[in-house]
Amino acid sequence: MKRNAKVSTAVIRRLPRYYRHLSELQRAGVVRISSSALGKSMGLTASQIRQDLFCFGEFGQQGYGYKVDSLKEEIGEILGINRGHTVVVMGTGNLGRAIIQNFQFSSNGFRLLAAFDVNPQVVGTKIAGVPVYHADELEAFVAAHPVSVGMLTVSISAAQSVCDRLVNAGVRGIWNFTNHELAISRENVVVESVHFSDSLLTLSYLISQQGETAEEREEELP
Amino acid sequence: MKRNAKVSTAVIRRLPRYYRHLSELQRAGVVRISSSALGKSMGLTASQIRQDLFCFGEFGQQGYGYKVDSLKEEIGEILGINRGHTVVVMGTGNLGRAIIQNFQFSSNGFRLLAAFDVNPQVVGTKIAGVPVYHADELEAFVAAHPVSVGMLTVSISAAQSVCDRLVNAGVRGIWNFTNHELAISRENVVVESVHFSDSLLTLSYLISQQGETAEEREEELP
Repeated sequence: MKRNAKVSTAVIRRLPRYYRHLSELQRAGVVRISSSALGKSMGLTASQIRQDLFCFGEFGQQGYGYKVDSLKEEIGEILGINRGHTVVVMGTGNLGRAIIQNFQFSSNGFRLLAAFDVNPQVVGTKIAGVPVYHADELEAFVAAHPVSVGMLTVSISAAQSVCDRLVNAGVRGIWNFTNHELAISRENVVVESVHFSDSLLTLSYLISQQGETAEEREEELP
Repeated sequence: MKRNAKVSTAVIRRLPRYYRHLSELQRAGVVRISSSALGKSMGLTASQIRQDLFCFGEFGQQGYGYKVDSLKEEIGEILGINRGHTVVVMGTGNLGRAIIQNFQFSSNGFRLLAAFDVNPQVVGTKIAGVPVYHADELEAFVAAHPVSVGMLTVSISAAQSVCDRLVNAGVRGIWNFTNHELAISRENVVVESVHFSDSLLTLSYLISQQGETAEEREEELP
């Protein structure tokens, strides 16, 4: 598989969407899809799709479209889905618990190994089969198990200190739900944040624009 | 305020980040900031920042940087933060509850009016002061109150039908946490989805790339 060296962040951000759409097409029994049909279902143009996928080598065959299963497999490979990544959850409040119970880690190539908390009512129990240990045991656990990613669902006040402990223990990535801008002390540790507010503000922008459009339309009426 | 007509999705997606960073700078007591300093804290170049903000008119003054409070206010205005948007929450499972209890709707310009569920143990109670009504009461509630957005934290199997009800009741936007690709029957209703899997797969990509970089480095060693 040929890959062009420098891939833009925008393309990388779209790859998971491709993977998600291709998984849905696969479940729906679709075998081949044209770039224009794939584009339509994703809200992109056919030429955008061809450009994106060209960054990672030649997938489609002129006039035949893309084979759904092999394109999905290739993109999964690029995304690192078969690398045996593992994750631990820091904080089993409502949000941590919701994600442990409902999120399909395995469909995204991650094995959920354990959760950590300080609440004595939770420590020693299991959530959806996942053992909850005391946060004090984190370092020993990471030393004994290969942990790729620490998911942060602690309170914002605890976010930086728990992040530091994960980084010092040797994880390679932080999946951050705390809405805190984390400072990372090691160069090769990556942070990916889910900022609920960014998403809601985007929605706010979009509905505000629509409001304007409606007003403008009214103004245009005789 | 001059606004260029066509603003790219990429710029729009960055506006909430600007707003978040400017809010933090404001809390930290920063009065003015140069485009290069703002860029550094956001991982963007100074020229990128100047380009982005130029889309919405002239904010900065050559050589003086940006005034933090007025830039924040202008971006908040663009994002529609002062439009009196309102939201109702559909589904008070762990995720819905976590967001009701912890997310600062008001800092993002939204008023959280009510939550809806079908669970008799929750209906009639309050979560963090927010009343929970039976889902059957949704249409009557939306008819009586101005509801801009419905937040979807129901199960994936209920996602489309609850979305349809919100759209038919007249909301203008859906904030979707169900990981279901919603079909929207009305033209002027917007969907904004928080896809946890897209975020985790991006992290998977980033840590996988780092692995490769390390391997390549090793190969380069004598």
